[in-house]
Amino acid sequence: MKPLEEESSFRIEKSTQDVNKFHELRREELERIFNAAPFVANLGIRLVSLGSGTCDTELVVEPWHLQQDGYVHAGVQATMADHTAGGAAATLIKPDHMILTAEFKINLLRAAKGERLTCRSKVLKPGSRLIVVESEVLCENEGTSKLVSKTTASIAVVGVR
Amino acid sequence: MKPLEEESSFRIEKSTQDVNKFHELRREELERIFNAAPFVANLGIRLVSLGSGTCDTELVVEPWHLQQDGYVHAGVQATMADHTAGGAAATLIKPDHMILTAEFKINLLRAAKGERLTCRSKVLKPGSRLIVVESEVLCENEGTSKLVSKTTASIAVVGVR
Amino acid sequence: MKPLEEESSFRIEKSTQDVNKFHELRREELERIFNAAPFVANLGIRLVSLGSGTCDTELVVEPWHLQQDGYVHAGVQATMADHTAGGAAATLIKPDHMILTAEFKINLLRAAKGERLTCRSKVLKPGSRLIVVESEVLCENEGTSKLVSKTTASIAVVGVR
Amino acid sequence: MKPLEEESSFRIEKSTQDVNKFHELRREELERIFNAAPFVANLGIRLVSLGSGTCDTELVVEPWHLQQDGYVHAGVQATMADHTAGGAAATLIKPDHMILTAEFKINLLRAAKGERLTCRSKVLKPGSRLIVVESEVLCENEGTSKLVSKTTASIAVVGVR
Repeated sequence: MKPLEEESSFRIEKSTQDVNKFHELRREELERIFNAAPFVANLGIRLVSLGSGTCDTELVVEPWHLQQDGYVHAGVQATMADHTAGGAAATLIKPDHMILTAEFKINLLRAAKGERLTCRSKVLKPGSRLIVVESEVLCENEGTSKLVSKTTASIAVVGVR
Repeated sequence: MKPLEEESSFRIEKSTQDVNKFHELRREELERIFNAAPFVANLGIRLVSLGSGTCDTELVVEPWHLQQDGYVHAGVQATMADHTAGGAAATLIKPDHMILTAEFKINLLRAAKGERLTCRSKVLKPGSRLIVVESEVLCENEGTSKLVSKTTASIAVVGVR
Repeated sequence: MKPLEEESSFRIEKSTQDVNKFHELRREELERIFNAAPFVANLGIRLVSLGSGTCDTELVVEPWHLQQDGYVHAGVQATMADHTAGGAAATLIKPDHMILTAEFKINLLRAAKGERLTCRSKVLKPGSRLIVVESEVLCENEGTSKLVSKTTASIAVVGVR
Repeated sequence: MKPLEEESSFRIEKSTQDVNKFHELRREELERIFNAAPFVANLGIRLVSLGSGTCDTELVVEPWHLQQDGYVHAGVQATMADHTAGGAAATLIKPDHMILTAEFKINLLRAAKGERLTCRSKVLKPGSRLIVVESEVLCENEGTSKLVSKTTASIAVVGVR
């Protein structure tokens, strides 16, 4: 299978570098929080993997995800980009903290037509109060995977949960 | 009933000023296009009104629209802000043209908790190629309506449909 | 003289409503901080007024402010929009706090050609940690004043100065 | 000398891949246009290199570039990020076209303190009407170079110059 990151503009580090930083015990809790959002679960967005400051998700495109011209709605991509960014940010906060998206900006680069979306989010700048994350959504269509949107999000880290 | 725009930062012009500019015959087609997006229809976003460069929508909040902490998911607000912005932009294009969102930025101002979202979008700058639109999403909760997010979108006007 | 806000999308409240909220003693300190930025002073951006959550500035356009086609450079507008937003945000923080821009987004609506820029910034959402501000830059040209850019900024409030 | 891109999130392709695409004859014209902006020249922003869809610039920080706390003003970074993005976009347009920034968003990641700024801009998505470009500004301070801001810009391609 072709690597999905092929069109990504991210410089992908070896995930093995991250192993010591990211706590395995924390992963289960983060997965639980990620999947606890009814909107994300109902859309069908699935958590694929979590690393230190990274998160990967996927979505099998269904007819109800589309807009009037048959492309995946920008709102679907925005939801995926935002929630995956939150997943990436959450890997870098303390257990008694939570995150809230303060703002995000999404550039829709191409009409998204295809069977499956994948999203990779990566922390650009960690912080104790604000974490900046980038998300790339790729759309798979007949064997090729293209970058369809890029998002930059500012995620606020807030007090005790 | 209290006016929903109370917290809006928009300067609301009298819609009567717009009557001559906006063609009644066009309205039906725009309504049809607005409602033709399966994702928007499935979310339950309802078109309330269209004016010259404006669009109003509403959404009755359901449990599946929420994120993990019980607030309306940012993706729901983003979908509403984007699609309503598109509705506002579409009122200013020629019948043989269509629109595509190039980018949008959303600031999430408050956690959105409540029964109903309303969105008003207003064209800030019309254009033959790019239309800039602002969207405000308000959340009604126990009789009060608060601004929960503000979006600025760049909508591309593209060739013959 | 024509009111400059004519093209503004802001809903302008009477500034008299703000008098009680905004402390006169604080104004002098805010003016001092505003003018203490060498880059802003060297550009010629002048503080016109401060209110509770608002700030107005102006700039007499000089040839060195332009880009290659004779328009005011986007960077000049961005500087003005950002610094004026900071001025507006600063009116709402405690004396022992300071502000730092976390991010801003600027939409350049028209080519800016003219003799003078004016900027009005207004807090959209106050906050103890993050303040969201909107800035509008208008360009005066031969007696008319047009909105040339709109900016939304997230301003972080940070600890003791 | 340490490579400046060390902290960059860009995946840097070998520039040799670009040689055939980018026309040497065009470079001189692009350099001329880049340097024809008085504001950029007066700030001291210097064009370092142009590739197919990329542009590198640098700026020796001077006291007048700072804000009130001794950091490089966000407006300086925004000017550099925008103009360098324009440089990168211009490498991909036809000779009889010109570019205008439609909008950009900048995330200020760290307070920028140091002697020199470098900026690399890279086209994320080319287009005949809209080009999306990312810019990273790094600040050199006592031998280290850190990413201080990241910008995403939508650059409009417009008719015959």
